[in-house]
Amino acid sequence: MTSPALQIALAYHRAWTGKDLEAAMAFIADDIVLDAPAGRLTGIQAYRQFLGPFAEQFLIRAEMIAGFGDDSTALLMYDTETIPAKSAPAAEYLTVRDGKIVYNRFIFDRLPFEEFQRRQAGDGVR
Amino acid sequence: MTSPALQIALAYHRAWTGKDLEAAMAFIADDIVLDAPAGRLTGIQAYRQFLGPFAEQFLIRAEMIAGFGDDSTALLMYDTETIPAKSAPAAEYLTVRDGKIVYNRFIFDRLPFEEFQRRQAGDGVR
Repeated sequence: MTSPALQIALAYHRAWTGKDLEAAMAFIADDIVLDAPAGRLTGIQAYRQFLGPFAEQFLIRAEMIAGFGDDSTALLMYDTETIPAKSAPAAEYLTVRDGKIVYNRFIFDRLPFEEFQRRQAGDGVR
Repeated sequence: MTSPALQIALAYHRAWTGKDLEAAMAFIADDIVLDAPAGRLTGIQAYRQFLGPFAEQFLIRAEMIAGFGDDSTALLMYDTETIPAKSAPAAEYLTVRDGKIVYNRFIFDRLPFEEFQRRQAGDGVR
């Protein structure tokens, strides 16, 4: 585990899954590009608005499944237990430059979250 | 790229994304366990029923984003262009034993596929 990018990725992951959003954001570059399921977001403020609600409102706990990396990139897969879904796994492919994450390709299944929102809105009540 | 598990993972990936489902299934162990977004499937027949329709009916093309591995596991992230969704990325965490894939944790966003099915069923027509 000598990949510098993986070290950064794991520190970022530990911070936000530990609900320390400020510590996590310290690893994010100002001009980060995030390719998320709903589309591309750019800039650290958009990133915070993407990650913050998930980390602070929905997340119960996270468990790492696998992490690999090389000099400049890291690939993580982990499971999360959340309020909307007992198991909501995700994968992140991160590019690191000068100790900061400059790109993230983020994959997760939006379906349980959409179903949760529908239930909250009362549309899905049976 | 000396990881034996990654070699198997990439060969499996090339086969199914090349729509050669038989060649892909040759890498799958009879007692495979698949943790997919909708839940756990066990056995090679269930695996074929999971992967086959996606590879044969929905997939247009795939592009590897990242692949890492060690002796016995590999982690892939790739994008796919599909009939339901222009971009439908996925991640697979594979465990390999004796040259066969015995476990797969498979992550993708089901939402565009569910929306496609809803449109096909006529529920989502505006």
